[in-house]
Amino acid sequence: MPCLVMKFGGTSVANLDRIRQAAERIKLEVIQGYQIIVIVSAMSGKTNELVEWVNETSNLYDTQEYDAVVSSGENITAGIMALTLQEMDISAQSWQGWQVPVQTTDMHSNARIEEIPTKNLEASFANGVQVAVVAGFQGVSPRGRITTLGRGGSDTTAVAFAAAFKAERCDIFTDVDGIYTTDPRISTDARKLEKIAFEEMLELASLGAKVLQTRSVELAMRYNVRLRVLSSFEKPSDSAGTLVCAEEEIMESNVVAGVAYSRDEAKMTLISVADRPGIAAAIFGPLSKSGVNVDMIVQNISEDGRTDMTFSCPTDQVLRAEKSLQTAKDTGTINYHNLVADESVAKVSVVGIGMRSHAGVAATMFEALHGEGINIKVITTSEIKISVLIERKYMELAVQTLHDAFELEKVA
Amino acid sequence: MPCLVMKFGGTSVANLDRIRQAAERIKLEVIQGYQIIVIVSAMSGKTNELVEWVNETSNLYDTQEYDAVVSSGENITAGIMALTLQEMDISAQSWQGWQVPVQTTDMHSNARIEEIPTKNLEASFANGVQVAVVAGFQGVSPRGRITTLGRGGSDTTAVAFAAAFKAERCDIFTDVDGIYTTDPRISTDARKLEKIAFEEMLELASLGAKVLQTRSVELAMRYNVRLRVLSSFEKPSDSAGTLVCAEEEIMESNVVAGVAYSRDEAKMTLISVADRPGIAAAIFGPLSKSGVNVDMIVQNISEDGRTDMTFSCPTDQVLRAEKSLQTAKDTGTINYHNLVADESVAKVSVVGIGMRSHAGVAATMFEALHGEGINIKVITTSEIKISVLIERKYMELAVQTLHDAFELEKVA
Repeated sequence: MPCLVMKFGGTSVANLDRIRQAAERIKLEVIQGYQIIVIVSAMSGKTNELVEWVNETSNLYDTQEYDAVVSSGENITAGIMALTLQEMDISAQSWQGWQVPVQTTDMHSNARIEEIPTKNLEASFANGVQVAVVAGFQGVSPRGRITTLGRGGSDTTAVAFAAAFKAERCDIFTDVDGIYTTDPRISTDARKLEKIAFEEMLELASLGAKVLQTRSVELAMRYNVRLRVLSSFEKPSDSAGTLVCAEEEIMESNVVAGVAYSRDEAKMTLISVADRPGIAAAIFGPLSKSGVNVDMIVQNISEDGRTDMTFSCPTDQVLRAEKSLQTAKDTGTINYHNLVADESVAKVSVVGIGMRSHAGVAATMFEALHGEGINIKVITTSEIKISVLIERKYMELAVQTLHDAFELEKVA
Repeated sequence: MPCLVMKFGGTSVANLDRIRQAAERIKLEVIQGYQIIVIVSAMSGKTNELVEWVNETSNLYDTQEYDAVVSSGENITAGIMALTLQEMDISAQSWQGWQVPVQTTDMHSNARIEEIPTKNLEASFANGVQVAVVAGFQGVSPRGRITTLGRGGSDTTAVAFAAAFKAERCDIFTDVDGIYTTDPRISTDARKLEKIAFEEMLELASLGAKVLQTRSVELAMRYNVRLRVLSSFEKPSDSAGTLVCAEEEIMESNVVAGVAYSRDEAKMTLISVADRPGIAAAIFGPLSKSGVNVDMIVQNISEDGRTDMTFSCPTDQVLRAEKSLQTAKDTGTINYHNLVADESVAKVSVVGIGMRSHAGVAATMFEALHGEGINIKVITTSEIKISVLIERKYMELAVQTLHDAFELEKVA
């Protein structure tokens, strides 16, 4: 029997009515003859409430207990969803992470799935159960403690089940109806993509288009799980949403698939660093250890044995970065004159697998920004992505300009 | 190391502040050198909310899924309590039912504890954990599904742990400061008992003094677990609360320990039943099967082969009882003229192990009620209890009258 994984996010199960709507959607697929694995999030707001209780109780909380507490929300939804399906005469059973079991590492609050044995669920399907409703976001460690997979982890749960059960597709129901060429709140020309390649989605996800958890896309790519992102509020149809799939499935595509942005970036510049072999490691090693996620890095040409080193990181990590670099200076690990933090920058990126075979994307991008008088502070590129750091006040203008320049409103 | 079980009910863990107060109380016992097992309920109101969601979703819900949903409340409290204790530099770890594991029957929503293996908790104590915080009210079935123990089940969890770990005592923290000679809301003379025998508590619990779940008292009696009922809001002291213990521990006691009542009783009378051997079974078998909890039974003297049969049951089961008896009449199993339901009665009982050796308790009781003009409709007695059914409007007067008649305000 073909298997389908359907994942419903927090807003799609926000209350009993929404759960009923989701169950109707599931029923349609049951009728189609699928064996269904449903992955549910906590009702929206629930997990935040639990996280708040933990934070209020303990600043430096034990992540084991954090996991035990915050995983409850998904358990509730799973049971309620099973009951709702039963009311529609569908045989359904709920599963908590430890019951499946979803085996994870013991890195509490940010565990990774190691294996999902299929035996227990398969036995229940063999017993006539039509729908397995699995609590997302959670698993169990080798020591039998409850783990969680980090925020957005239910997406990863869904993809992991789709891989383990060789599902025909993994449908991610959320509050947006697909992946857009850019944020529709910024450009009214934004167009919904019918398909997008895993690699593109990965760049978009990590760049701030927060529809899917990055790890879920990585996992989908590795196991070639066809992911569909769609709204739980749109009418069922095969063309609904956006299919995230292997490059080979996408016949035609624009050179650039989308324009992403990230608002809360900071640009940090170490002025007059003594340049010597190993200086990059001496700077970025301590930063990484103190939990600063360095993104872009630019090193100026060295003059008289000294250079300027610029990097970007999220604005809320600036203090941590400053402290870490000051310590490195105090202990003599590095030597620099001054550290300048610019917290009013934003990152804008164009992403597309078509770039691999099309020259001139960078030129088009820089010209378009220049035409609007937007100054580029830092540039980084990868095979399928070009990112620039610009003044934050130009961010929306930059996104609109690039969307126009690459004619993303038009289908290839 | 001596072991202590401490159970905190819903009002004692109603919010983060209350949980902190409870943790302070636990800390005092940790300092005393006890190995502590804490049993927690859901924050007050939480379980009701979950039950409501289940009821709203499904009228005839699957009790397996009911259990999966409603057990979440306790899990949250357990994790938060462990974190709170850790903040006080106490090494604590939370345990959900399946992790211990609390092995139960698979009678979902009303399971019974079959065994509590001590291995896992003992290993954690050996690793330096000082407090095991266990989610009450729940367990796991032989099939690996979550079970719950029925309302008030956390008391039973506590006593079962106390028995399994041979605890020195099982302290039940609640919102009342002990067991009283009667309900203080009805009689201002009500006196808190320092000690009460298991048998007496059992009669009081099942008679409507809802401080402890009946099953927990049964279990405590069977395993001779010393139970202490006390308020989580009163100052710690060895004489606090009421100790529920074996008769032998109670040196002196009043003949009557307390006066209990149950407001919502109904008196049902089958008029002119054809009397024949087996008629009682023919009547009460079907009632039991349809879930009617018959309490008192009185059969009138038979005349001309016919008799009247009177019994009492909770008012909310009257419809069910009527339906069941009508069916039995229709199918010819029993034969009666009329069924009369009186839904305006209440039950008042006096309980005391001293009755065994003291004659005249019944006489004193009946005279006192007669003195106030209260008519007795039905009487039942056991070795340590006399119960009467009276008109509900006299219930409070009857309780006060009996409390006075047996001088319960005075210590023996």
